[in-house]
Amino acid sequence: MNIIEGGVCAAKGFSASGIHCGIRKNKNKRDLALISSSVSANAAAVYTTNLVKGAPLIVTKRNISDGKARAIICNSGNANTCNADGEEIAEKMCCELSNAMGIRAEDVIVASTGVIGQPLSIEPIKNGIPSLVASLSDNGSGLAAEGIMTTDTVVKEIAVEFEIGGKTCRIGGIAKGSGMIHPNMATMLVFITTDASISSQMLSKALRTDIASTFNMVSVDGDTSTNDMVCVMANGLAGNEEIASESEDYKTFMKALNTVTVYLCRKIASDGEGATKLLECRATGAQDVLTARKVAKSVICSSLLKAAMFGSDANWGRVLCAIGYSGADVDISSVGVSFASKKGSIEVCKNGAGVEFSEEKAKEILLEDEIEILVTLGDGQYEATAWGCDLTFDYVKINGDYRT
Amino acid sequence: MNIIEGGVCAAKGFSASGIHCGIRKNKNKRDLALISSSVSANAAAVYTTNLVKGAPLIVTKRNISDGKARAIICNSGNANTCNADGEEIAEKMCCELSNAMGIRAEDVIVASTGVIGQPLSIEPIKNGIPSLVASLSDNGSGLAAEGIMTTDTVVKEIAVEFEIGGKTCRIGGIAKGSGMIHPNMATMLVFITTDASISSQMLSKALRTDIASTFNMVSVDGDTSTNDMVCVMANGLAGNEEIASESEDYKTFMKALNTVTVYLCRKIASDGEGATKLLECRATGAQDVLTARKVAKSVICSSLLKAAMFGSDANWGRVLCAIGYSGADVDISSVGVSFASKKGSIEVCKNGAGVEFSEEKAKEILLEDEIEILVTLGDGQYEATAWGCDLTFDYVKINGDYRT
Repeated sequence: MNIIEGGVCAAKGFSASGIHCGIRKNKNKRDLALISSSVSANAAAVYTTNLVKGAPLIVTKRNISDGKARAIICNSGNANTCNADGEEIAEKMCCELSNAMGIRAEDVIVASTGVIGQPLSIEPIKNGIPSLVASLSDNGSGLAAEGIMTTDTVVKEIAVEFEIGGKTCRIGGIAKGSGMIHPNMATMLVFITTDASISSQMLSKALRTDIASTFNMVSVDGDTSTNDMVCVMANGLAGNEEIASESEDYKTFMKALNTVTVYLCRKIASDGEGATKLLECRATGAQDVLTARKVAKSVICSSLLKAAMFGSDANWGRVLCAIGYSGADVDISSVGVSFASKKGSIEVCKNGAGVEFSEEKAKEILLEDEIEILVTLGDGQYEATAWGCDLTFDYVKINGDYRT
Repeated sequence: MNIIEGGVCAAKGFSASGIHCGIRKNKNKRDLALISSSVSANAAAVYTTNLVKGAPLIVTKRNISDGKARAIICNSGNANTCNADGEEIAEKMCCELSNAMGIRAEDVIVASTGVIGQPLSIEPIKNGIPSLVASLSDNGSGLAAEGIMTTDTVVKEIAVEFEIGGKTCRIGGIAKGSGMIHPNMATMLVFITTDASISSQMLSKALRTDIASTFNMVSVDGDTSTNDMVCVMANGLAGNEEIASESEDYKTFMKALNTVTVYLCRKIASDGEGATKLLECRATGAQDVLTARKVAKSVICSSLLKAAMFGSDANWGRVLCAIGYSGADVDISSVGVSFASKKGSIEVCKNGAGVEFSEEKAKEILLEDEIEILVTLGDGQYEATAWGCDLTFDYVKINGDYRT
């Protein structure tokens, strides 16, 4: 399996584009993105668990209930959430695209990201769609990735190439991370495309299985988005025999999918609002995977630990504390903690108690911008990884700034 | 019922003191506190639910298993948590006090607050106890309150006077809030004294009932302390007929207790690390009290909302979002949100959607230092209140600073 260029356009038959249509005031910021498959693709998606759901999610859920889709349209700058006419506007976005592309409106996946509770006008979108469609191209992934960005500071895209039954397959993805012009909890949008042939049922299973250990293990500020969506389109143009069961091919597909999703998870976490550091917590030696996930996620979510990491402070007591309130059934007296980075690794806690360590060495390790927090539970063979970022002055600044 | 002076010494038979014994480097900071009852008192306590528990909690739990206590000793500057010899040191603190006061070591409530995982030497405590005991006085509540302070910026104490069966009773309390010289999650220590006569069983019931709607509804940073403890001593010197059932007298006692605890909750929240504002979220119209509590606490805990309040930003979408992921079973389409302060009240969301409102008026209201977030669920008659504070640059600074 190789990492390749092309993002969501790497897979055969996919093209993309991104433009500024006027939802945002800043003309230099693209605010409308399109991803298209030349043929009907099997589609699957997962949505936020928040009871407050963006209107586009409801429309998308309806549209891909048949497991099929042709295109994805997404605007940034407005979440189209908590608006009385939200669904109507989301439907219109699908209809306008359907007219412009000659595809069924029911084959459109629609998404929005931005401030909640602000009416979204269809006008700029309607006026922008013609040029959005006209500019579709095989190397438009980067423009689409820009179009879904909010306060993201870097474009997030990746693609991998792998083989199934002698056929070359590709999976590519783009993502938007946490933060918006008007920060409002929309922490994640991920669009994945592949030319691998896989039944919509197995595609859905693959996505649901994968996100449990990837996107659901990412936290920037603990606020569950109202507009989160991860969706994947598989158009089968790679020509491999359709994956219709948990075969070896399915495992190969899962491995490739996981490479794409883990890469995007790390990108999203490291580009979290105000973040200066990527935090990766690996919990090992758990009695089961759920325990490992509870522990890793609790550590990653601790405001106190996040602030300590910002300060490059080897404050391991906060790691233990977060494990203690994680709700996981662990024996604290057998817990160990180490911090690691490019500069090496240092053990700070063993059997639930502190061990002598060099604060200088710890500081040197924690001054890096990618920090690993290694937790050993000494209780079994299962493990899990969670990704997050440090809590910084900029996080407070970005989210404390007045909206107008 | 009147609010009176005296703190934990307001009730008959209680005296207190606080000194600097040398656990802290700063000689101007008291680091050892004592509260004493002239006669044996019924005692009850509640402890942190964190699996990582400070050694003093374990010793205290053992000591008051008979429902009796004579004194409370507490040091600040070191949590005596995650230390191999923690229990031994906590036991020694009880023994030294027992020798100096001529009381049973098993009648001592012991507590510690400060950095986790740093060995606590008994020497400064042992050497300090004689003068600590010698300086016990009827007006020592303030000194004891200082002795348990960490990065608290104000002393937290209160007392109320009320009547039971023609007898004047008093309840007083002191508390330490969130933050330490080496911040480490110890968010709360509360010591309450009363001369009301109440059985240890009913005292325990009263405390457990009360904290569910008071101290358990306070959040500064979502990190559950390892050393939290709320304990109450009742010595019966008021001479009222012992409260031994859920009688009218019990209700009167509960009301007085609640006045003390709510006052301390607000003090703790408003003095949270780096806080510039007290946030009070009142959720009304819930189908049951647990739903109301889930909603109010979720809103208070949202980092995004806390940052918005710091910026005086009427970002109501964050309130709705926090309700949406609270886990409470609510109908979002009937949720309403208003912000209020001394400057008035403003409705920002109705039936789950935004309403037109004056950003200027909202800003004026939110610039105050005590903000009420009113959530109406339109689903029943139950309500709950949660207390918290804004998320500020100083929170990050305090918790990001290197420990040494």
